[in-house]
Formats: sequence, C-alpha cells, structure tokens
Amino acid sequence: MLQSKLFTKTSRNVSADEVSVNARFLTQAGFIDKQMAGAYSFLPLGLRVHRKIEQIIRQEMDAIGGEELLMTSLQPKELWEVTKRWDTPEQIMYKFEQAGSSDVGLAWTHEEPITRIAKRFISSYRDLPRYVYQLQTKFRHEPRAKSGIIRLREFVMKDLYSFHATEADLDLYYEQAKQAYLNVFSRCGLETMVVEASGGAFTKKYSHEFQVLTEAGEDRVIYCSSCKYAQNHEVAKGKVGEQCSACGQDKFKEGKCVEVGNIFKLGTKFSEDFKLYYTAEDGSPKPVVMASYGIGPGRVMGTIVEVHHDEAGIRWPEAVAPYRLHLIALGKEAEVLERAQALYQELTSRGAEVLYDDRDESAGIKFKDADLIGLPWRAVVSAKTGDKVELKSRIAAKAELVGTHKLLNTFSVR
Amino acid sequence: MLQSKLFTKTSRNVSADEVSVNARFLTQAGFIDKQMAGAYSFLPLGLRVHRKIEQIIRQEMDAIGGEELLMTSLQPKELWEVTKRWDTPEQIMYKFEQAGSSDVGLAWTHEEPITRIAKRFISSYRDLPRYVYQLQTKFRHEPRAKSGIIRLREFVMKDLYSFHATEADLDLYYEQAKQAYLNVFSRCGLETMVVEASGGAFTKKYSHEFQVLTEAGEDRVIYCSSCKYAQNHEVAKGKVGEQCSACGQDKFKEGKCVEVGNIFKLGTKFSEDFKLYYTAEDGSPKPVVMASYGIGPGRVMGTIVEVHHDEAGIRWPEAVAPYRLHLIALGKEAEVLERAQALYQELTSRGAEVLYDDRDESAGIKFKDADLIGLPWRAVVSAKTGDKVELKSRIAAKAELVGTHKLLNTFSVR
Repeated sequence: MLQSKLFTKTSRNVSADEVSVNARFLTQAGFIDKQMAGAYSFLPLGLRVHRKIEQIIRQEMDAIGGEELLMTSLQPKELWEVTKRWDTPEQIMYKFEQAGSSDVGLAWTHEEPITRIAKRFISSYRDLPRYVYQLQTKFRHEPRAKSGIIRLREFVMKDLYSFHATEADLDLYYEQAKQAYLNVFSRCGLETMVVEASGGAFTKKYSHEFQVLTEAGEDRVIYCSSCKYAQNHEVAKGKVGEQCSACGQDKFKEGKCVEVGNIFKLGTKFSEDFKLYYTAEDGSPKPVVMASYGIGPGRVMGTIVEVHHDEAGIRWPEAVAPYRLHLIALGKEAEVLERAQALYQELTSRGAEVLYDDRDESAGIKFKDADLIGLPWRAVVSAKTGDKVELKSRIAAKAELVGTHKLLNTFSVR
Repeated sequence: MLQSKLFTKTSRNVSADEVSVNARFLTQAGFIDKQMAGAYSFLPLGLRVHRKIEQIIRQEMDAIGGEELLMTSLQPKELWEVTKRWDTPEQIMYKFEQAGSSDVGLAWTHEEPITRIAKRFISSYRDLPRYVYQLQTKFRHEPRAKSGIIRLREFVMKDLYSFHATEADLDLYYEQAKQAYLNVFSRCGLETMVVEASGGAFTKKYSHEFQVLTEAGEDRVIYCSSCKYAQNHEVAKGKVGEQCSACGQDKFKEGKCVEVGNIFKLGTKFSEDFKLYYTAEDGSPKPVVMASYGIGPGRVMGTIVEVHHDEAGIRWPEAVAPYRLHLIALGKEAEVLERAQALYQELTSRGAEVLYDDRDESAGIKFKDADLIGLPWRAVVSAKTGDKVELKSRIAAKAELVGTHKLLNTFSVR
C-alpha cells in the first residue's frame, strides 16, 4: 500500500474523553474512528488487524471441527421469552417497537436462536456431536461504555456452540476448546491466565475466563505470581497471604485484567427450555448437552495495544500487524525514490505485506508516524544506505544494514 | 466436508409462507434459516456461497482502488439530522430510546458517517481522489419483507464511496465502477442490464441500476429484446411499440427484474451538508464531489437461485458454489467406501472443494439431495464404476465415466 494513497492519516490530536491507551493510539494512528460512546468504526489499517485476528480464530475453530454460520441480529421477542432473557435485570438488550411490527430486539448473545435452529437438524444420537460458530456483531446496551475498544456497545464476537449427547463428551470437547483458545491468544501475542469463573445462575462452577494482566483491565484476578502460567495456564486458587497449593510459596496477589475470552458449560438449560431432545441408542429421549465459547476480536485488538506499546506508539506482534514491513524513502533524490519504488514493487509482487511511505515528508515525520503505526519492521532507503537498506525491528533499539537479497528473502511469501 | 458431519440436513418441508423459489430451495437444501420476517440466518453451506460472492466483490473493488473499512450500525440521531434523513417518509430506520441514552438508530445506509469520517482525512486536493468500501449489515424497516433473501430487513451490503476534486474525475471513476459491477455480476453467473434510474431528489438522472430479468423481480424494466445487452449492457430507452434507436426494431417489452446493484452520483449534497471542503490548487475552498455504489451479496445469492435452478433444485455457477464437487459413495461394499474415502482425502489434500456424501442412505436419497443442493459436479463411486468414477455436470443430462487421474486434475487447485 502506498501511504500517499492511504485513506487515513496520523494525527496527534485525540479527544480528551479518550483516556485509554488503546483508544488514543488507535485513533492517532488512524486505525479507528469513534462514532458514539461504545461504537467505533474500523478504518483500513484497523480492519486489517481485526481481520487477521478473525482469521486466527477461524483457523483454530475449524481445527476443532467448527462449522461457520451467521445468525441474525434482529430477534423476535417470543424467542427470548422462552428462556426469560427478553428482560434482564441489566436491560442489556436494545429493543424497539415500530408501527406495524411486533417487538424486536438486537442479539446480545445467540444461545436462543442457535438452540432453535439446532432443533431442525438434531434428533438422533447419530446427529451428535455438532460444533458451529459465527463471527457476528453483538449489541449490548452497556451502561458504561469505556476503555476504548475493550468495552463496546457494538462489537464483533466469535461465538461457538457445541452440542453433545453426554456430559462426558462435552467435557472432552471443552478441554479441546480451552486449548484452542490458548492457541488463539498466544498467536495474537497475548499471555493469558485461565481462571475458573464465578459465573451466572446456570454456569456456576462450569465456566472459565481467559484473562490478560494489564493496568487497563476492569477485572481483578488473584493469582500466584510465581506459577501463574503453570498447569496449562490455569491459575492456582488462593488468597493473598496464603500458601499456593501448586508451588508452596505465598506469592498470591491481585492483578488488573482484561477478560479476552470465556467458555461456558451450559448443560441442558437451553435444550430443556427449547425441548431440544435427541433419541439415544436405547430409544429414549434425552436433552442435548450444550456449551458456548466466546472471543471478541476487537477486545483482543485493544488488549494487544494495551500490552504491546511504548511512549511512541503501538508495537504490533507480527501475526496481527496490518502490514509486516514499513518501507520508508528518505530524501528527494530521484535515485533514492526509484530504488525504493523498485523495492516496493518487487516485495509486493512476491506477496510481502508492505506499507510504503512515499510521501514528501521529513525523516522526523516519517519515523514518528512509523513508530505510532507500529509495524513490526521498518526498512529505510536513503542516499546513505547505498545499495542496502536500514532494517530495524519496532522493538529493537538499533537498525542494521542489510542487502536487498536478504530483505526480499525475509519478507517474501512466494 | 463429510456430509455425515454437516450441521444441516435437507428437508422437503418448508413453511407455506415461503412462496419464492429462492427461499424454498435455500431452506430445503439447508442453506438458510428464517428467524423472522425479513431476517434469515446463513447456515454453513449458505454462508460459503455468501462469502464467495463477497470475495468476488472485494477483488473487483480492490482492483479499482477501493480500501476496505467497517463502519458502525449504531448511529446517533444528531448525525442524521444534518441531512434531514433521521426521519424519512418511509420511516425506514430502526430507532430506539432507552433510559439514560440519547436516541440511537441503525444505519440503513452510510453516507452520513462516511462523510463525517472523511473530514478527518481530506482537506487538500492532494488527498483526492479516495475510494473506500465496506461489507456491513444494513437494517431497513421494510414494510413488506418478502421474496426470500431478496428483500430483507437485515442484510449485508457492499457500499463503496468515492471522493473527487472535480465532476470530471468522478465521471471517469463512475464508468470504471460501472465496469467493475458488470464484472462482479458476470463472475456470479448473472446477466445484467444497466438501466438509468428515475432516482431520488438529489440523484435524479445521475444513477444507474443493475437489473436481472427474472419472474421473481419486483421491478419492471422496459428493454429492447433484440439488443438488450448492447452498448456495454446499457439498455436503449424507449416505449413498447416504439422503434429502438440502437437496432431500429420495435422490440421493446416490459420485463420483471431484480435490482442487484446501483450506483449514484451524489454530487456535493453530502459534502455541503457536512462542510467537507478541500483546498484546491489555487487555494480556494471547494466541496468534495461524491458518489456511492451498492451491491447486496445476499440479494445476488437469491437472484442466482431464481435464475439458476430446475424442478429438482439449485444449479450453482462454479464461482459461487459452496463446494465444486459432490462426491457420492453408493452401496455398502467395503471396497467402494474405501475407494471413495481415499479419493476424498486425495482431493482435499490437493485443495479441491468437495462435499463427500458418506452417509448410509439409498442412491435415490443421495441423488435427490445432490440435485437439491446443486453443486456444479457430481462424482459417483460404486461397484459398477470399477476403478473409474461417474462424473456428471449439474446442468447436463448424462454422466460420463472418467478415470481417477482426470478427476484429480480437474478439481485440484494445487
């Protein structure tokens, strides 16, 4: 992408009501635009990050047998009255009445519609297990929409639903899904703690949260700081001052965390409400055992910025960066511009993901923008670099001179 | 994909209120599920078609310089009061009031937000032209939601917005976009007529519709049946009984059509309302000239079914089929099942898109399901086929015996 043609520009100005690090940097770097409290547009660079996170999630869901579908946001009142979730104490559902229609709300989760749909296709033990997921917008009337893109009123969520004949089968799959979740976050550059959740009415003791330590967090988690990632990332339980059962030390502390994902054993709550029964091998009718599993890619993106940044800007992990390489031409010499242009063309023809700063701007402005945007690698072409380029990692202090051949080899994908 | 594991099943039952061909076949084949009037979920097979159409659209939009972004559905009242489109005569916008919030609506189009966002980044002639697009859900409170997935209350739309310094520049791009649209529809297997539209207040004589002839259409278009696709698909103007100015014959007739896309020259309507001005080369402030361009992938999908089907089911064009090949094992012989399984594995390992009917069902049921689902090719493995397979196109009457080698060559992509 030529930076001179990019729809967005960086800006140092950001509204005073954006207090979170992720909202400030993402706004300044031109990744997002605030439409209203709790609703942000994803601009071209921001959407590229969002899509890369979505793609990582898709790969991991597909790997555990997930089939992708897409349910509706518009939801009829009657469906949600079956589970008594049309009215919740928090009144989280956006609802509207309009002349000539029955009451309609916007989905803030999708257990109700997926259970109804599953009734069309699941009737026998032979139809189980089944795993379906979607990447669909959720709408939640959050009273306090803050923390930039971490707590939103409108956001894409990946939600997977699994259907099983028995609890034992669910338990096996639940552990597979837990591992898939750990893979997703690790590929996105986030270290997560798996925390047994306090849960709601029907999820008590059957749900887990994936928590990332950061000052931007709204949750608090007690963890043992000497073994927090032990036992497949599950935190040991305990209180501050107590001895940890896993490592024997008294290193429990409370940390601020962002919850980037959660998994719930729903049991037979929804299948009983909707009469989703299957015929077992012995001919008897049994309720289907269900679980749901959620990740918000936008929240993951916001958390990545909270964890990976310095004073100058974002430091994207390679797997989710909008482009891998920021190619920068410095100076007005025709020779330099020609060489940079040729390199850009060669790189893109080999499938490399390059943002090429071809603008007529000073070195100072170009370097500041590159640090703010935060691509993992920066390659400078100038009169000083001769037939080489100055390659620097966003997280390294020093650049190194490398030959064109090495640059091409490093960033080509074909 | 193994059909025995597929989330959906075919069904001959369909609700009596589904009168359109597309809704009946797509429901019976398990591609969609009706959530409520005007809102359908896309099940795994259906989502694959939708995504393929989206991908074709993306490629054509990228080819004319489009940058993808994603705006919000939630929209604040104040923004839409600028253009006086918060209240429209049709009251097409879903709106809700909730304790503690200001009025919020759901976007039924996105000119207002994109013009506001463009003000952040466009201020000089150097910043023009710019082209941005999105694939985002629109919500429209249609009084009559019918025609299956052709007229919906909730549907994904690709909307592209272009920003220009001059009308002359817009005119050039408008023709490029028109060609890109023709490419999209042609790749999706649809023949379209380009019709100058009657248009709304500010689009009069500056908008075009892309119309597909089908009995399922809600529009009526007068076209010359002897030269309807002449002049780059633009229909000659005239009335029934008149002589066509293009071919000289009096072959004008009225046909039922579905509008699958439209393009509008917005001029300076929105830029003046939002004060989106740029500084021209001579230093003077000028309003940006705009246009918008829309395609609904779901509507395209519904129209494809209306155009491409027979009594037995859908006949997907290759480019948008959920899978290219339906591999069917007939009989219970271990040898047959082993050979079919080995073929399936070899095909998928070579990147072929295969749905493998590995179910324990009769030939009659398998063939009926295959015709209903409508993949372009069907390959049968049975005791009769020996070491060959019986390959049949969905649109051909007869099958032909082909060797494994030819099958692999035809469907492999790597």
